[in-house]
Amino acid sequence: MTLYVNLAELLGARIEQGLYRPGDRLPSVRALSLEHGVSLSTVQQAYRHLEDQGLATPKPKSGYFVPQARQQPALPMVSRAAQRPVDISQWDQVLELISRPPGGDVLQLGRGMPDISSPALKPLLRTLSRMSRRQAVKELSYGSLYGDPGLRAQLSRLMLDSGCQIAIEEIVTTTGCHEALSVAIRAVCEPGDIVAVDSPSFHGVMQALKGYGMKALELPTDPLTGISLEALELALEQWPIKAIQLTPNCNNPLGYIMPEANKRALLALAQRYDVAIIEDDVYGELAYSYPRPRSIKSFDEDGRVLFCSSFSKTLAPGLRAGWIAPGRYLQQVLHLKYMSTGMAAQLPQLALAEFIASGHYEPHLRRMRSQYARNRDCMIDWVSRYFPAGTRVSRPQGGFMLWLELPQGFDSQRLNRVLQPHNIQIAPGSIFSAAGKYRNCLRINYASQPSPALEQAICQVGECVAALLAEQQLVHNSAEGAVTP
Amino acid sequence: MTLYVNLAELLGARIEQGLYRPGDRLPSVRALSLEHGVSLSTVQQAYRHLEDQGLATPKPKSGYFVPQARQQPALPMVSRAAQRPVDISQWDQVLELISRPPGGDVLQLGRGMPDISSPALKPLLRTLSRMSRRQAVKELSYGSLYGDPGLRAQLSRLMLDSGCQIAIEEIVTTTGCHEALSVAIRAVCEPGDIVAVDSPSFHGVMQALKGYGMKALELPTDPLTGISLEALELALEQWPIKAIQLTPNCNNPLGYIMPEANKRALLALAQRYDVAIIEDDVYGELAYSYPRPRSIKSFDEDGRVLFCSSFSKTLAPGLRAGWIAPGRYLQQVLHLKYMSTGMAAQLPQLALAEFIASGHYEPHLRRMRSQYARNRDCMIDWVSRYFPAGTRVSRPQGGFMLWLELPQGFDSQRLNRVLQPHNIQIAPGSIFSAAGKYRNCLRINYASQPSPALEQAICQVGECVAALLAEQQLVHNSAEGAVTP
Repeated sequence: MTLYVNLAELLGARIEQGLYRPGDRLPSVRALSLEHGVSLSTVQQAYRHLEDQGLATPKPKSGYFVPQARQQPALPMVSRAAQRPVDISQWDQVLELISRPPGGDVLQLGRGMPDISSPALKPLLRTLSRMSRRQAVKELSYGSLYGDPGLRAQLSRLMLDSGCQIAIEEIVTTTGCHEALSVAIRAVCEPGDIVAVDSPSFHGVMQALKGYGMKALELPTDPLTGISLEALELALEQWPIKAIQLTPNCNNPLGYIMPEANKRALLALAQRYDVAIIEDDVYGELAYSYPRPRSIKSFDEDGRVLFCSSFSKTLAPGLRAGWIAPGRYLQQVLHLKYMSTGMAAQLPQLALAEFIASGHYEPHLRRMRSQYARNRDCMIDWVSRYFPAGTRVSRPQGGFMLWLELPQGFDSQRLNRVLQPHNIQIAPGSIFSAAGKYRNCLRINYASQPSPALEQAICQVGECVAALLAEQQLVHNSAEGAVTP
Repeated sequence: MTLYVNLAELLGARIEQGLYRPGDRLPSVRALSLEHGVSLSTVQQAYRHLEDQGLATPKPKSGYFVPQARQQPALPMVSRAAQRPVDISQWDQVLELISRPPGGDVLQLGRGMPDISSPALKPLLRTLSRMSRRQAVKELSYGSLYGDPGLRAQLSRLMLDSGCQIAIEEIVTTTGCHEALSVAIRAVCEPGDIVAVDSPSFHGVMQALKGYGMKALELPTDPLTGISLEALELALEQWPIKAIQLTPNCNNPLGYIMPEANKRALLALAQRYDVAIIEDDVYGELAYSYPRPRSIKSFDEDGRVLFCSSFSKTLAPGLRAGWIAPGRYLQQVLHLKYMSTGMAAQLPQLALAEFIASGHYEPHLRRMRSQYARNRDCMIDWVSRYFPAGTRVSRPQGGFMLWLELPQGFDSQRLNRVLQPHNIQIAPGSIFSAAGKYRNCLRINYASQPSPALEQAICQVGECVAALLAEQQLVHNSAEGAVTP
């Protein structure tokens, strides 16, 4: 781990734990440099990192301070997942969520759509348009089974940002991250096999596990640091687990970034028990801190990590442009991709290659990262204001999804039905669990720029939640509902 | 079956059987009308149908004649497939065929590429270009799981041409026909199940069967009429077959169109033994005769036919725009599609919807049909001229693929290696068989407009074939090598 990230994580943990309180002055740069035996510039980098995360504020000539407390709502509780592998259900609710195309009258707060109205997308659209006019063999014909070489060269370069040195030959493009995850699962597992997953977890992977006849073992997951390594180790002892599937960076739906030490420890466990890791990095480039967090793949030495990603969250899902770096499973992945779609659409691959090569991707990412970080603060404010007191809220470090937890007994599927006449849709928590847990939770999207209409919609959702709680006479347990500093 | 098609098939069979010889005058319109109790216009339609197929020539004021024999090479023999289900092999050779992107120095006669240089594609490219410039929600976001409603409306209309009345709600778009076939197989079969296939058969389906752990039962297939119904019935008696997968229209690689009576009989068998039919129609719209042949799906009454197709052969494979009409398996197909890719790229779907709606698709099809029909005649001429005497050649009724059969013992994989220094690639026959049969056969593509360079390449392939035959002292059995009238 880089020194400054190490130090920043240490300080961040102390702040989160309340060792330093809002308004407190943080140790001086010189003091930290002496205490940890690192250079002054390393400490300065660490503080800038904390600043990006909103955990430290510089005051001219006085040093760094813990920001004055905005009343932060309590975090969701660490999930207590079922301690045995289960078959996956919940397809009906997933279908309900995704069967309606976007763009109608309904405000789809439940979907994983990025903001596609950004002007930074224009160069990509111009490239697509220009390439469409050419009647070139490359755009219209079958490409290589591996995918377009130009795009794969750019992907190899981009992956350096997450610490990965991956050759072009080790990358295969796919029809979205969806196909990448789907072939990854089959490359590693047979029907009947057990896959350990973070919990709550992405419903696309769960449904793939369901369809291929595999079982999911949901592991307790901390809303700030991710999957519990203790629970994982116990599970590896107890069950013949074939793979660990998780989203360590800007997790969907919880938004955390797994600390680097945990990533390394998880990989060590995987090595010890000889299981594969399927890493979903689709939100990784939308981390609010810079540089972006490292992937588990970046520590992989024996090719057991299958790294899956796409441009669906960073640019636009309609492109269906994803990729996989499958390590030692390359040959299986090629065959599985050929079976599943043969190859991905050519035009988006060619246009993306040019868009990235001509330097348009990085500025776009910077813009979206800071937009989503601002939107997060705004959305958390709104939820604090309009939702019943005691609503627990995630604190995302990237991406554009917020996870809300209401008292046990609350039914977010019922909430969706109540919201229907208001033309608002949320994602019910139960689709993020193999066994249908998290009915008392919901996920909402904050990608779009805040607007009075959006604020009113959140207010509306809050009122409906309050009405349902009152009807069921549900309240937060006061201990559970405590507000963190 | 329409009366005139019935009559045309009857006459066609008599001509093929040699009952009427080249140069013979065919029965008059009046005589046939009396003989079969049909109207004069029905007979005239039947003759126009035969004319389209090159089986009858009109002479002004004298009626219809059997065309003067061009020396037609003998047809490939009816395949004698293994009479038991087998695991599928041959992935290495498929990979060799498809791993190289088109457009390089190598003349890829082995690939299933249509001619994408046609000016009739221009309106599609203009539409794609115009739509790319818009920053519209529809182009960039997730679409419906079913696919774009506008495109599905056009597909519903197009399917009328093959006799299908399919509602929009029964159509799901896919990433190419590849994904359609892949989800169809899994919607119907479990690992270990047996699927009956025509033989030779499309390698994409074989590899999917392999990947999902299913077994292929290859059935004897006639180069003019398709899968043997007798053999199929015996197999259905003997084995617990779950599905029949075939390409009845403009078969790949043999090019035949299965007679309507056979299609009905096959469906009746499927009903009697309660098995599903997976119908690949990807070349169906490229039948040289007009109107295009009916699909098996068009006779389907209880939703047991899963109809799969795409625009990869009619327009361009790089679009990856396919679809499936899965009958009673709709719910399974939706789940499987969600598992496999989530959804297909939006832009090609939207552009295609507009391209078809504005009337550009039909003229394009007409143009390609007649181009491919002319190319077929030219390619068969070249093969007759440049290949060793006795080479058996298919007589495609649509599409752009020719199947060549050489004496037993000939090795088309070796031919490919010999052709390498000449920068020519053919498709070895063995990849069209689950068990690696047809090593003595090869498939070549005649989509491109004939040119002196292409003629020279065919001449080159013929010379290499002759050299290999001489080296191995292989000759055609004189009885087998007989030339048909």
